[in-house]
Order: sequence, then structure tokens, then C-alpha cells
Amino acid sequence: MAEPQTIPVLDKGFVRLVDAMGDDRRIVQAARVSYGEGTKTVREDAALIDYLMRHRHTSPFEMVEFTFHVKAPIFVVRQWFRHRTASVNEISARYSVLKDEFYEPTPEELRTQSEVNKQAGEGRLPEAEAERAAALLAAAERDVYARYQELLELGVAREQARSVLPVGIYTEFYWKQDLHNLLHFLRLRLDHHAQAEIRAYARAVAKFVKARVPLVWRSFEEHVLNARTLSASEIAALRKQIEPQAYEAALKEAGLSKSRVREALEKLFGEA
Amino acid sequence: MAEPQTIPVLDKGFVRLVDAMGDDRRIVQAARVSYGEGTKTVREDAALIDYLMRHRHTSPFEMVEFTFHVKAPIFVVRQWFRHRTASVNEISARYSVLKDEFYEPTPEELRTQSEVNKQAGEGRLPEAEAERAAALLAAAERDVYARYQELLELGVAREQARSVLPVGIYTEFYWKQDLHNLLHFLRLRLDHHAQAEIRAYARAVAKFVKARVPLVWRSFEEHVLNARTLSASEIAALRKQIEPQAYEAALKEAGLSKSRVREALEKLFGEA
Amino acid sequence: MAEPQTIPVLDKGFVRLVDAMGDDRRIVQAARVSYGEGTKTVREDAALIDYLMRHRHTSPFEMVEFTFHVKAPIFVVRQWFRHRTASVNEISARYSVLKDEFYEPTPEELRTQSEVNKQAGEGRLPEAEAERAAALLAAAERDVYARYQELLELGVAREQARSVLPVGIYTEFYWKQDLHNLLHFLRLRLDHHAQAEIRAYARAVAKFVKARVPLVWRSFEEHVLNARTLSASEIAALRKQIEPQAYEAALKEAGLSKSRVREALEKLFGEA
Amino acid sequence: MAEPQTIPVLDKGFVRLVDAMGDDRRIVQAARVSYGEGTKTVREDAALIDYLMRHRHTSPFEMVEFTFHVKAPIFVVRQWFRHRTASVNEISARYSVLKDEFYEPTPEELRTQSEVNKQAGEGRLPEAEAERAAALLAAAERDVYARYQELLELGVAREQARSVLPVGIYTEFYWKQDLHNLLHFLRLRLDHHAQAEIRAYARAVAKFVKARVPLVWRSFEEHVLNARTLSASEIAALRKQIEPQAYEAALKEAGLSKSRVREALEKLFGEA
Repeated sequence: MAEPQTIPVLDKGFVRLVDAMGDDRRIVQAARVSYGEGTKTVREDAALIDYLMRHRHTSPFEMVEFTFHVKAPIFVVRQWFRHRTASVNEISARYSVLKDEFYEPTPEELRTQSEVNKQAGEGRLPEAEAERAAALLAAAERDVYARYQELLELGVAREQARSVLPVGIYTEFYWKQDLHNLLHFLRLRLDHHAQAEIRAYARAVAKFVKARVPLVWRSFEEHVLNARTLSASEIAALRKQIEPQAYEAALKEAGLSKSRVREALEKLFGEA
Repeated sequence: MAEPQTIPVLDKGFVRLVDAMGDDRRIVQAARVSYGEGTKTVREDAALIDYLMRHRHTSPFEMVEFTFHVKAPIFVVRQWFRHRTASVNEISARYSVLKDEFYEPTPEELRTQSEVNKQAGEGRLPEAEAERAAALLAAAERDVYARYQELLELGVAREQARSVLPVGIYTEFYWKQDLHNLLHFLRLRLDHHAQAEIRAYARAVAKFVKARVPLVWRSFEEHVLNARTLSASEIAALRKQIEPQAYEAALKEAGLSKSRVREALEKLFGEA
Repeated sequence: MAEPQTIPVLDKGFVRLVDAMGDDRRIVQAARVSYGEGTKTVREDAALIDYLMRHRHTSPFEMVEFTFHVKAPIFVVRQWFRHRTASVNEISARYSVLKDEFYEPTPEELRTQSEVNKQAGEGRLPEAEAERAAALLAAAERDVYARYQELLELGVAREQARSVLPVGIYTEFYWKQDLHNLLHFLRLRLDHHAQAEIRAYARAVAKFVKARVPLVWRSFEEHVLNARTLSASEIAALRKQIEPQAYEAALKEAGLSKSRVREALEKLFGEA
Repeated sequence: MAEPQTIPVLDKGFVRLVDAMGDDRRIVQAARVSYGEGTKTVREDAALIDYLMRHRHTSPFEMVEFTFHVKAPIFVVRQWFRHRTASVNEISARYSVLKDEFYEPTPEELRTQSEVNKQAGEGRLPEAEAERAAALLAAAERDVYARYQELLELGVAREQARSVLPVGIYTEFYWKQDLHNLLHFLRLRLDHHAQAEIRAYARAVAKFVKARVPLVWRSFEEHVLNARTLSASEIAALRKQIEPQAYEAALKEAGLSKSRVREALEKLFGEA
């Protein structure tokens, strides 16, 4: 079992690696089963993994599995659990009295509503507003917790009393997922469209993943995270402006292998 | 497309049938593909469906699909989405300002904490406590919503301001699921261990299911919902006390078919 | 229920649309639930669908569902069922004697082994070899079927006798899948890396999909099927060779909306 | 990583444990996260696991994961892969020439077709027929493999030539699955309705599972594998014939705990 490690996230949360199974080598083994005798030869692990990643041969990546223990506010957890291909055990507020722990952003962490992007916050609030808002938010959470306790003292069942608790309250869960689906989670939740709070968790998860499967991580950055998908029209518009020889030279200069240069040219100049 | 229908649930929620695909007949067709030429004969639909249900041949039940539109408090939705084999689109509190609508149980609807079952509420609160608790709960929600609005007015992004909103606030979602997984949902959420609030939703969903696939529903009640699973030790203890002939007679009297009587006897007296 | 239609595939197979639920409108409705009040305005359906597709907001596409009845050789079905997010009922060779129907490619349909791509066939066999191979293949299947019948006549159980049957024999199945996962299937199985035989089925499935959700199909072609994903290195190499103004002009000339032109430029010249 | 171990199955197959993550303790840890502070007390691990199993609280069992390497005939693999909640990498007959290895049952292993159960084989063939059938089956497989080789020599692509190969040919795959879904697989595939050949594989898998999670296995046998589900009518028929006191005494004598005796009585005499 991997040495448990914990990365703090937000003001009171964390991501802890509970366990992991498999690594870069396991992916190669599993892929080689698929290819049988035919490819047992000298292909390097890194090259095979890179090939699998850029051609979206995803099944070998499912052979690696991670288990995390996470503490996060409910509103983050609600986004997190939209990813259905994972196993989850979460604290039940029916069984247990939830603790008095809320996400309380500092004034500096408060964002204004973006006018362009309806779903996003961006930029910082003016200082005075930020101070007031942070205080207001913290007070709201303190007050509501007092009421939760009053309801419990009046004898109201935990499962009903909790309905006053805010989605900023912290909860904890075990979360187990395979690497393929984990990378999908990371692609979406490391993206700048994701809410800053869940992005902070995604960065912590990414650290554990990178440490466990460094070859995969390199290919993931190259072919997924920092790659860009260009639509048919964009490809058509680009094609007219690119000189194939110059592009080929630039690709070689960047150190791409022969087969990758060929693939890259085919993307732009091959048939749809 | 099915005629849209809406069943009110709790104080402000509902379940609305948006659409459905397939019915009892579809299940029979799909099952007959599995059995090919071999069983195209005179087996009745009801008998075939009953056979599939009691032998847990679940795949034909996946051929029927339902789409619902639901309005429910977040704490109910959190339980609901633990069922991962469904498609979901929910209101985003990043995009939209959530409305001022909370689950506000009446004093009569408030339950006391069960001492036996750590996760359950049971029985009613004494009248005075119930009155106070209901008022307190409603006040908590009103107050917190005022603070949510203040935060928005201060310019805080919706995605952050919502962190003060309680899990008793109403949200809405589209929910699409196949019949097999829907029956699994219903078995768990109609059960008396489920929280009363989600049980109310399950009953509404059940009405739509029963109307759409009446033959399935009958077999589901007989073989799943009102069936009981007896452990190996319980079967062993029972076996000694049952007179096979008397049991057989009782089963026949209850109108069970020959093959079902045989199966029933085999369960108790057959080899493990 | 949709009018049943059948498209013949290969020499004896077919794809038949059994039923479908939802269409372009349904996707829009489901997406609008997510966006709540905030975006009920004048956004056009096509624009919203295109936005969802290019930003990989996939959940609304799960709201549309298709049921097909397919007849295909086992080796095709084995590839098909690697897609796990679908519901399936297939003929059982334990229940039924399989029919004497095999995939028998014509000499023209036989491909040679590719030397470049270890998994592919490409190009045609020389005429003489093709004639011999087609005859040999057909004879092999006839002979083996005679032996299957002999085994059955000797009293061998169907479930064991079938072990001599080749993976070229036809089987039938019901297949139900949501549009999001169906598009994923099509992206992989319409690709020129997919085996020609399953590609023929994918084209038939695609016809039904295109007819049912024409707006989705248009966006799928633009943003997925004919799009290309360029790795981080490729983007870096391209960036140096593209004149932003000229590219912008070409995009506008191609008729892209303002926001799409902005997005396209950001992909190439924005921060990673 | 667990010490790799291999269990031979059928004439040429095997199940090998590649790796596993988690054990009985992990399930308890994960469950305790769900119950939070509320139940950190003296409950024993075995009791908690038994409670989870008999109340079908399945999510903690998903926290344990197994990876197997399996060699089995294609007809077995086709049944196996109907279980979709697993990760799989299989040899590709497009990439590689499959080896000359077929399932060749001995005369003693050949079964006759059951007349009662349309899908099953049962009993042995008469000796003469069994000898002929076994020889015939082996000859069919040898012949067909010769033709496969001829097709390859004529230059036919592997992906097409393989269409003559029988479903009795051996293939290999990596198979990764969580314990909850693995137990579901075992319940179905250890059952006497399952084909004898896949049952042999299920028994091998079961050995690895039992060794890894002995507490889970004990509860699985008691509450699932050797339990019986009685329909509503069967329960009603039984109820009239059972003397509650005598049944209670028998349950106590069998060593059941107080709470289990209470649960057992409730099943038979409680409200539906």
C-alpha cells in the first residue's frame, strides 16, 4: 500500500491518497496482452504509452486504480459526483451530526460575477465589498449552525434538521476511480472553465497521479491537457495558411519522432 | 410521446413524466431475441415477464426507458444521485440565481430522532416542540436567502454566493433511466429504511412506472418489492419446521403455477 | 414510436431502428433546465446545440435514446460490445440452434494484411488468391456447420456443440444506447482505423442518427468527426507559422460567428 | 502487490491474480467514513461487514479491487463480458495470429441437451457417442485452424482470416473489477444455471476472493450465495405454517445474534 499522504486544499479541506494499484508498467503489460505475441519486441514503454494516449486507446489506462479520501464543501462535492464512473462512500448526515466546519473564503478569495461567462466568477471584489461579503458569509454559516443545533435539541431527527445546513459545509468521502476516468475528471476540472474551488482539488489529485504514473502524465499533458481540438472549419482555414515543408521542419525541430511528424501532417493535410 | 403528467410531491416539488420508450411488449420482444427460434411458441407475455423477473434475467428490462423532470430539495437530490446509472441535467447555481423556495415541513411532518436506528427519524415531535422547530426552520431559510441576495448585490459571483444556501432549497433536474435500474432505485427508495422525503418521490415515480408497464409491476411486487431474502441459516431453521406437503398445498391454493410450486419447494428443500 | 426501418449491411446482416426517444428539441429542453431562468432567452436551438457539442457539455445528449435490432457476425459483435454503456439482448446459442448463416466476403471484399498498420487490412488481394481464399472461407464455414449438426445429432448439448462455430457466423441482438455514447461509438467505428466490416454497420447506424437529430449531426461532423486534435507541440509549431489576422479573416470568410472566431484564435494564441 | 498465483481451468485455460487493492479492513474504513463520528465505537469488523452485506449496503464493497489475467475460450469470454462494470484488455486477433489452442472436452466432459431446461446441458452422453463427439470436435478445430493458416498464407488480412476461427479457441484478457461487482458476477456464474465451463472459471476467481476478503466471503455465503429469495406469495404461504416461538428458538440455537433473530422474524411476520 502506498504511504498515505495528505495535501491540504481550501481553508479546511484535503485530498489524501489512501491507496493505488498499478503504474506505468501495468498499463504496458495490459496493452501487450491486447497485442499478443505480435508486439512483444523492443518498443519502449514510454513510446507505447504515448501511442495509446494520442490514439485514445483508453482501456489500458483503466487498469490503474486510485483511492482517495477527500474533505470538501458540499457544493464542490456536488460537482465532483457528476462523474459517475467512480466508487464513493460519503459521511451520512442521517447517521451523524455534521461538524461546524464551513468553507470561509478570505476577502481576497471572493470573485465578482463575470459578465461574459454566465457561469463564472472572475477578478476580485473591491476591498470594502470583499470585507463585508466575507464577514457576511461567515456570519451566515455560524448562525445557521446554531439553528441546526437548536433543531437537534428540540428532538428533530438529524435527517430533517440538516436541511438548514448550507452547501458550504464540509463533508468527507472515499473516492475510488480508475486512471482513465480520473484523467477525464482532471481534464474537465483542471480547465479554467471549472469553478476555482474544485480546480484546487483537481490540482491536488493531479499531484498524486503525476507521481504515480509519470509517463502517462507526460503524454496526458502533451495530447490532452495542453492539446487543442480544431473543428473542421478551423482545420480548413488553417490548411490554406500553412506551408507543409515549414510546418514539418518545425515539428522535427521540436523533437517529434518520424511517425508523429507523419501523423501531424496527416491531421492537417490528410483526407477528412 | 407520452402525455406529460405531473404529480406534486412535498410542499413545492413534483415529478413529471417527460417521455418513455418501450413497454411490457418491448421486454418480451427483446427477450425473444435472446431465446431465438427456440421459444417463439405460445408462452404468454405475462408468464415470460414473470419468469424473467423471478430469475433475475434483468437485461430485457433495460430496454424500457423513462425520462422525468423532478423538482426536489438538494438533500433529496443528493441521495437520488447516488444512483449512477442514469442521465441527469440539473439547474446550475453557477449560471442561475436559485429561487427562494425551500422545503418547509409542517409541524406534523417533523420526526424525532430514532434511538434504535441511528439513521432514521420516527414518530412525531411533541406539539410544542414541533411548532417551534417548524418556525425555526422556516426562519433559518428565509434569513439565509436574504444573505444570499446581499452577497449577490455586493457583487459576489453566483458560484460563491450560493455556498450559504441550505440543502433544503429546491432544485430541478431531468432524469433519464432504464426500467431495470429504475426498479432498483424503487426497491431501495420505497423501502421503509429510506428517508420519508425521498420515499415520497419514489411513490410518485412508481405510479408512472406501474401505469406504463403493468405486467412488470405485478411481477416486481411479487418477486422483489414484497419478497424476502432468507439467509442460509434462516432457510436451515425453517426447513425443519415446514411440512413439505402442507406447504405445497398452501402454494397451490394460492394459485401458483406448477413450475412455480416446484421452484418454491426447491428453494426450501433443494440443495444449496 | 418511430416507423421501423431496416438497412441491409454486409451479405446477410442489417441494422433496424426499433425505436427512439427524444430529438434535437429534447436536448435543448434538458440543457435549459441546467441553465435555469438565466438563459431562457433568444438563443437558437442550433446555436445552443453547437455550443454544447464544441464545449463537450455532453449530458444533454444523453437525453436522447435509440433502440436498434442488429444482425451481424460474431467477430463484429465482439468489437461492438466493447462499448459497455449500452443495453443488450442477444440470441443465446445455449437456448437456440444457430442458423446456417456466415459472413462470406466476395473475392473483391478480401483485403491483404497491411505491413504498416499491424491491425489493419488494406488493398485487395490479387485476383487468383482472392478467388481461392473466398472459396476456402466459404467451404470452411459449410464444413464446420455440418459438424455442428453432427454434434447436435449425437446428443451433445447446444451450449457445448456451438464451440465449433466460427466467429463469422451471424447472430442478432437488440441494442439500446443514449445519443452521447452512440456518438462516441460512431466516432471510433466510423474511423478509418476501425475494421471495414464494423464500419459498414456504423454507417447504417449513422444514417438513423442523422435523420433523427439533424442539428446534432451537423455539429458532430464539425466539432468531432472531422475535427482534429493537435498536441501541445503541434500547436506550438503551428503558432509560429500562422498570421493571426490572416487566420481570423479566413475564419470569418468561412462564416464562423464572432464567438467562434474568438474561441478559434484563443485555441492557437491563448494561454495553455 | 500480491504474489502472482495461477489456477489452471479447463484443458488449457487459467485464472491468474495479477493484483488486488484493499481488503476486509478497507471496507470497514470506508463504511466508517459514511457513518462518521456516530459509530466509531466497539462494533466489530466482522459484524459491520455482515450488516453491510445483509442490508445490501453495497458501496463499501466497491472499495476493494481485483485484477486478473485469464485465458479462456471465446464462448466463455462472451458470457463473461456481459458483465459491463469491469475493465478489460483482450488479445486482438487483428494484431496477432491466434494460437492453435482450442477447448477440447474429454468424452466424459460432454453433456447431453437437457429437455427440461432449454438452455442447459446435463448428464453425460452414452460412451460411444461421447467418444465420437469428442473426436469430431477436436478434428473440426484442427481442420479449421489449417484453413485459417491457408488464408493467412494467401495474404488475407488477419482481421478477415480469423472469421473462420471457432468460438472454442482460447483467448486471453486482463480483467479488473471491484469486489461488489465481482460478487455479483460470482453469484450468477457459480449458480447451477450457469454453463459448466464458465462455472469452472468462477470457482477459480472465488478462491482468490475468499483468500483476500475472508470476512466478506463468509457473509456473502450466508446472505447471498446460499440465501433464497421467497416471493410475496411464498412468504404468505409459509407464515401460516410456522410457529414464531419455535422458529425463534431454532434461530437462536443456530447461533444468530439478537438483532439477526429480530430481523429474521420481521421478514416472516412483519408488515410487507
